[in-house]
Amino acid sequence: MTLRTQPGQMLARGVCRHLTELGFVSIEEFVPCRGLRVDVMALGPKGELWVIECKSSRADFMSDSKWQGYLEWSDRFFWAVDADFPTELLPDETGLILADAWGAELIRSGHESRLAPARRKAMVQKFATHAARRLQALRDPEFIFSV
Amino acid sequence: MTLRTQPGQMLARGVCRHLTELGFVSIEEFVPCRGLRVDVMALGPKGELWVIECKSSRADFMSDSKWQGYLEWSDRFFWAVDADFPTELLPDETGLILADAWGAELIRSGHESRLAPARRKAMVQKFATHAARRLQALRDPEFIFSV
Repeated sequence: MTLRTQPGQMLARGVCRHLTELGFVSIEEFVPCRGLRVDVMALGPKGELWVIECKSSRADFMSDSKWQGYLEWSDRFFWAVDADFPTELLPDETGLILADAWGAELIRSGHESRLAPARRKAMVQKFATHAARRLQALRDPEFIFSV
Repeated sequence: MTLRTQPGQMLARGVCRHLTELGFVSIEEFVPCRGLRVDVMALGPKGELWVIECKSSRADFMSDSKWQGYLEWSDRFFWAVDADFPTELLPDETGLILADAWGAELIRSGHESRLAPARRKAMVQKFATHAARRLQALRDPEFIFSV
């Protein structure tokens, strides 16, 4: 089982719990394309795709130069931060989730920019593949696949 | 972690390993629609959907009255059996995988009957949801979701 020791990972746990309550499923550390890795990718009941980046501090946010690259891979983009985070730093058009390790609350949905159908289809396929592969690694840890 | 003690579950493990080698991901005990539960649902790199039913014995096969109901939920349908199974019992148009607990081999692909696009889309969405939900249950076992 993956150890969760980083503050961002604890936020991600709370975020994923809240997403479940909203009817979404989610996976952590999802790679939509080569060179990008999002903290949480969520899939809604109608195929909605949300990206959530978890920031534990101002420094963590300021050092992220890639977040705008995530916008084209989701219908909505959210920051997840804890109650002490200076939220005035965050762009108004982005979504906002307040989180801790145990749960979260969606404060602001931000701007919606719906994916084109072909990209949505490809992303749902990738999401399914990624989730099933990780699940299998946990269910059958003795299997070492190499090609 | 789920215990695998039934012969059918051991076959499923070998099947899932081989599917990985074929570039597919898979999940066990998937419910395509209310009242049906397939042993293994596999998703290919191009969105192919295969159902695999694992039969540990002649009696196990003979008591299955539901398998024809699975055909409409997949592009291909396979039986997975061990080397001692009397394969002459199995309909020619169905696929055949020889399996044990450690691996498997695809013997016969059977008839292909491609899903309509809308059903494929719905099935990939359900596959993704199912895999991510189970993964989260393993990653965050303390979270008890109830609504």
